[in-house]
Amino acid sequence: MKRGTLDAAGAVKALDLSRLNEILHPRINAQSMTCNEVSRATCNEVSRATCNEVSRAEGLPKWTGGISGAPGAAAGRVYFSADALLEAKALARQRGEDTRCILVLPAAFAGDVKGIEAAAGVLTAQGGYAAHASVVARQYGKVSLVAPEISITDKTAILGSLSFSEGDPITLDVPYDAESSVYQGIAEISEPNITGSALLDFIALAKGLTKNFQIRANAETPEDAEKALSLGAEGIGLCRTEHMFFKPERINTFRELILSESGGARDKALEKLRAMQGDDFYRIFKIMAGKHVTIRLLDAPLHEFMPRSDADITSYIDHISASGETVVTRDEILARIETLRECNPMLGHRGCRIAVSYPEIYAMQVRAIFEAVHKIQDEKLDVRPEIMVPLVMNAAELKLIAYGKRVEGAGYAGIADIEEFRNCPIGAMIELPAAALGAGDIARYAQFFSFGTNDLTQTTLGLSRDDAAAFLPAYSHYDLLEGNPFRVLDERVQELIALAVDRGRLTRPDLVCGLCGEQGADPAAIRFCMDTGINYVSCSPYAVPAAILAAAQIQAEKE
Amino acid sequence: MKRGTLDAAGAVKALDLSRLNEILHPRINAQSMTCNEVSRATCNEVSRATCNEVSRAEGLPKWTGGISGAPGAAAGRVYFSADALLEAKALARQRGEDTRCILVLPAAFAGDVKGIEAAAGVLTAQGGYAAHASVVARQYGKVSLVAPEISITDKTAILGSLSFSEGDPITLDVPYDAESSVYQGIAEISEPNITGSALLDFIALAKGLTKNFQIRANAETPEDAEKALSLGAEGIGLCRTEHMFFKPERINTFRELILSESGGARDKALEKLRAMQGDDFYRIFKIMAGKHVTIRLLDAPLHEFMPRSDADITSYIDHISASGETVVTRDEILARIETLRECNPMLGHRGCRIAVSYPEIYAMQVRAIFEAVHKIQDEKLDVRPEIMVPLVMNAAELKLIAYGKRVEGAGYAGIADIEEFRNCPIGAMIELPAAALGAGDIARYAQFFSFGTNDLTQTTLGLSRDDAAAFLPAYSHYDLLEGNPFRVLDERVQELIALAVDRGRLTRPDLVCGLCGEQGADPAAIRFCMDTGINYVSCSPYAVPAAILAAAQIQAEKE
Repeated sequence: MKRGTLDAAGAVKALDLSRLNEILHPRINAQSMTCNEVSRATCNEVSRATCNEVSRAEGLPKWTGGISGAPGAAAGRVYFSADALLEAKALARQRGEDTRCILVLPAAFAGDVKGIEAAAGVLTAQGGYAAHASVVARQYGKVSLVAPEISITDKTAILGSLSFSEGDPITLDVPYDAESSVYQGIAEISEPNITGSALLDFIALAKGLTKNFQIRANAETPEDAEKALSLGAEGIGLCRTEHMFFKPERINTFRELILSESGGARDKALEKLRAMQGDDFYRIFKIMAGKHVTIRLLDAPLHEFMPRSDADITSYIDHISASGETVVTRDEILARIETLRECNPMLGHRGCRIAVSYPEIYAMQVRAIFEAVHKIQDEKLDVRPEIMVPLVMNAAELKLIAYGKRVEGAGYAGIADIEEFRNCPIGAMIELPAAALGAGDIARYAQFFSFGTNDLTQTTLGLSRDDAAAFLPAYSHYDLLEGNPFRVLDERVQELIALAVDRGRLTRPDLVCGLCGEQGADPAAIRFCMDTGINYVSCSPYAVPAAILAAAQIQAEKE
Repeated sequence: MKRGTLDAAGAVKALDLSRLNEILHPRINAQSMTCNEVSRATCNEVSRATCNEVSRAEGLPKWTGGISGAPGAAAGRVYFSADALLEAKALARQRGEDTRCILVLPAAFAGDVKGIEAAAGVLTAQGGYAAHASVVARQYGKVSLVAPEISITDKTAILGSLSFSEGDPITLDVPYDAESSVYQGIAEISEPNITGSALLDFIALAKGLTKNFQIRANAETPEDAEKALSLGAEGIGLCRTEHMFFKPERINTFRELILSESGGARDKALEKLRAMQGDDFYRIFKIMAGKHVTIRLLDAPLHEFMPRSDADITSYIDHISASGETVVTRDEILARIETLRECNPMLGHRGCRIAVSYPEIYAMQVRAIFEAVHKIQDEKLDVRPEIMVPLVMNAAELKLIAYGKRVEGAGYAGIADIEEFRNCPIGAMIELPAAALGAGDIARYAQFFSFGTNDLTQTTLGLSRDDAAAFLPAYSHYDLLEGNPFRVLDERVQELIALAVDRGRLTRPDLVCGLCGEQGADPAAIRFCMDTGINYVSCSPYAVPAAILAAAQIQAEKE
């Protein structure tokens, strides 16, 4: 047993983490790959599975450059909107043709999630590693490339000497640690073969070495939960509930909530949303039986749910007509969109600020969670939900939202006041400098903290992840930042996190702390978390294996 | 002498500061005023000057509510854009009619500054006390009211039962500490009579009591500088250079810089801008001879300078045709506007990030400063410029921008490398949590810090001052924030400032520290600054007297 452990530690130490990321993603050309060398020592079987079927893309016109958003390779036909892409994909499926599509956009918004989910990859003009398109792409295991040089006009994209119209074939090649390329045409792609490979045995071996430090996954669909579990995740550290509403068949129901004039119609919309979410939660809890599932209540601003095109507005009006509710006019919808518009949405009416204004939304979500909990318990399964309140700014906010009735005269039904609630842990997402500094007070009302390092990086550095691509190249040129702060934890952000952990545990010594930002997959961040006494990181399912190995390597080093 | 000082201290202690603010602003109705009571003890003469000529607005249709942006009262005709307002005002002047106008906008942007400057007041749907329109209005001594209830459609505004079309008469009444009103019609306004009043004697008395603590003013025009000086300011703590470019006759020259394709054309635009700024600086330095003038280099994002209407675009094309330069097309301008658009401009490509990308802009500004300095020195006057770099995130940035050549291989001409530069103090604006935390390093390259508490509040709390009005009322209702954080310094922001002062002075014991945000006029903030070892606050000229009195009262209390 002793000897077996030593062998496992030796094997874990020998693996090159950056190569693991390559092994886990599709590739287009074997020539530049070196995974054979890496894998020889540890996982021959994996490398054989990933390296076959690769052919050359050399004959195709090529553009090189851009900012890697999500690594891998993807080929398909170009579409300039999520709707056009979904329609084309459905048609190709009917005709038995290749259904792969690439979404090409100036910038991606929350409403584009459905398009990214259906696409093989996404190419945007604005953004960067931590921009919306890239975060979502990594979450779904899609490829994302940001090319600020691309010029997109009505259904045509020009990138260097390449030109794409709607339906044209394109290939994106975004290696993990090398320059990216865009090809005019379809190159052959080789998919990684993960399940059943030696890699999984290796992950299981590594998990035995991480001691009390956990790797959880960010997941909000049953498919993601399954994937996360198969890749070794020990729970879900971030289940983003708004993503559940962005599905095409659901978003109009959420719009009813925002656009209905009467309380009765809003209540009906809430009922429908509750049923949808309850079903999602039930399926996720079932997959994750015996494991923690941290559910983040609604975080996105309401305007992200509003129609963004004429077709969207028509779709909503058709939906509401069919439902028999009072029809709103196009002008009324446009006026509401105008009212909800914000100058700086990242710093606007979102996160738990929505719950302060509209307590009924969180109440609906909590009811949905507990209906699912009771169903799972009826099946004699172990269910471990944790409720997380996003964008907490101070203790007073969390006290109101969690324990409304205890705030004298507020007349606010807090989460813990809801009948279905059964002493489930309530936690605060710490993603504002104010929350980190005020952690001692916030911990009075929070059983756990989860550090949302994407937003904490944005606010600490005053840096919008959606806009930073315009100037970060100059920052790299002059060496003004140590790496991309959305990929590698900035040291000032680290200071705030360490201070929040300390202040929080002065109030509540058994406070559980996790980190669920994009940086959670970075070995340096994992080392920082282990050194700071943070209990887990949560990252996208595809990043889980590398995170487990990193934690095991760090732990093995210490022993 | 001893007895005289005691008397002054007693008189200073007796004055109610909140009433002083009322005395300094126009009013519409004497009925609700209580300044008589206040002033009886201390400054009878002042109250008599402000309270006469007031008539009743009672007969006019009235709406009550809104958020006070800048106190006072203003009447005039309604216009829905800065351009329409400027045109109407010019026409009224020609005809010898009443030239007073009120600007009514959904939201105000930097390009609207010219309109606010020309207007008597501004009424916006979006915003709040710390939003752009309000900050600019307070700076210029204009009235600003935010009424989220207002509905503005093409040249008509509806507010409760009131309705305004272009050219209709309106009155805004925004008392300092009571509910605001909007009247349909023109009510009589009484202007405060400051110069020559007992108030000024009183300010002079109070200044003698503030010891080493200074009150400076935020000013960027010779008129503001004069006003600041007359109201007792001991220097300019914040001269925002981009405001100098927003003037109608200058903005097209700045647009040349952004829109020109050739380096030659950009150099010509820079030359013209240098001459304009040099002249401004010369006039301000002359007024402020013997006093510090802290000049903040360009902070605004480039998109704030771009045309925002068809008329703006036409005006630019006409301007460029007349200048004989290569004409850009409307489509090219629209494409550039699209490229510069940002999701969260507050966290985007602005502040010294502009200088990292385009060093020539700060170089031009520094040359303009030193040409003015030399002219003043030739006149044997004492000139004390200080150069301030905005939105510093870390020491590497400031090192590059200030001392470019010292950064190996950068090939970047820093401010201190510019020939005209003569060991003028260079400072960092500390307005990001990262800068506060990294203050120890930043102080290696900064002779002074200026805490920009507007932006520091926004980033620390993750709160956009332009968007917060949508949810802060609910926060007040549930008592979730101790006052408006853009008016009263939040305690987490205070912690970051105190920490930055300490860390900065560990590196540089004689580091000068100032505070130049909107909260600088608040007595509690002044007390915090004095307790923390901050050397001065800088606020809008109209707030200077109250700030001096507050500092004197705090000092008197201590003795």
